[in-house]
Amino acid sequence: MVLQDRAKATREAIIVGAAAVFEEHGYGGASLTQVSDAAKVTKGALYFHFQSKEELAKTVIEEQHRIVVAESASLVAEDRPALPTMILLCRVFGLKLVHEPVVRAGIRLTLEATAFGQPVQGPYEDWIAVMEQLIDRAKREKQVRSSVGSEAFARYLVASFTGVQMVSGVLTGRGDVMQRIEEMWALLLPGIMHEDFHEDPQVLSGLVSAESPGQR
Amino acid sequence: MVLQDRAKATREAIIVGAAAVFEEHGYGGASLTQVSDAAKVTKGALYFHFQSKEELAKTVIEEQHRIVVAESASLVAEDRPALPTMILLCRVFGLKLVHEPVVRAGIRLTLEATAFGQPVQGPYEDWIAVMEQLIDRAKREKQVRSSVGSEAFARYLVASFTGVQMVSGVLTGRGDVMQRIEEMWALLLPGIMHEDFHEDPQVLSGLVSAESPGQR
Repeated sequence: MVLQDRAKATREAIIVGAAAVFEEHGYGGASLTQVSDAAKVTKGALYFHFQSKEELAKTVIEEQHRIVVAESASLVAEDRPALPTMILLCRVFGLKLVHEPVVRAGIRLTLEATAFGQPVQGPYEDWIAVMEQLIDRAKREKQVRSSVGSEAFARYLVASFTGVQMVSGVLTGRGDVMQRIEEMWALLLPGIMHEDFHEDPQVLSGLVSAESPGQR
Repeated sequence: MVLQDRAKATREAIIVGAAAVFEEHGYGGASLTQVSDAAKVTKGALYFHFQSKEELAKTVIEEQHRIVVAESASLVAEDRPALPTMILLCRVFGLKLVHEPVVRAGIRLTLEATAFGQPVQGPYEDWIAVMEQLIDRAKREKQVRSSVGSEAFARYLVASFTGVQMVSGVLTGRGDVMQRIEEMWALLLPGIMHEDFHEDPQVLSGLVSAESPGQR
């Protein structure tokens, strides 16, 4: 039991160390020596848990996805209308991209994944499915127009968010990503919101600023 | 003169060969041996023109950007309102992402660029500047509402397009990228179009389908 706990702690330390190294150097630039140094474990311990850099990178991607999916599932389960939930999910993901090393590293690795021959379709498909369900609900709740195609909008939203955080990363090291996410929604909302909301501009700005990122 | 022509032809063959190799294997998986094989030149000739894989990758990125910027400059110069020009630029870029090997390779390398330590800001900044000028003109031409922030929309459009083609690449090998670009515009237009256009849904669909990709 104690041994198992220690093995688990070592494994977690390796993942956190690997995240720091991948985040800084990318997949191509990272070495297992850097990871064992960052995680403060021996090479032997590292190889006991992970056979290769590729396996380590896949684990960091999985861990990142697990973190964000777990958080989003609890947000979706809360008692909140669907459209504000979608906006909130983007904000929370944005904050994790700024502050959470495993998420930062996982997303960098996801973007670089073709570089190490790993097409990473699962996370995109998961996000599209989550957003599609929320849009369907937002239509029933009369926040989104029924003419908006749920699947098309979900796919576009996920693609658009991916591009927004990526270009923010290239141009500002993600320094402006939260502002860019707000701008994305400010541009998207007028095109999708239900007729009843268009009468009142307050509702729109209220939706965008209802919950500030700082609250979480 | 003949020698210069031959050197130029060799250089171009290397770039085309490199594009094919980078497109298939990515930066990490590509080797200079593969490039000299694909370009049908000797290793000596390859090293005469390019000192390293990194230099070759940077050249393919530059060449891709040069191709797309040249085409976009001629499109912008044509006598066409600004908003349809923006839509057309996205379509032409999309078609090049499907059909033009140097562009395919250049964009893959741009996305992977952090993997080889090359932050590629220039192309994004160039595109944002082009789109910002077009939005300013589209406002003067009363196609886009004056309340839309030109810089914010230009930055968002470029980021969004980047994400759309990237996610299309991951999920379908870019098989659906042209349809995804149309969906992007169909979702963006209602949020930005000038009041005068909102009365007539024909104008909107007319703008989107005014020039089919097949025409170019």
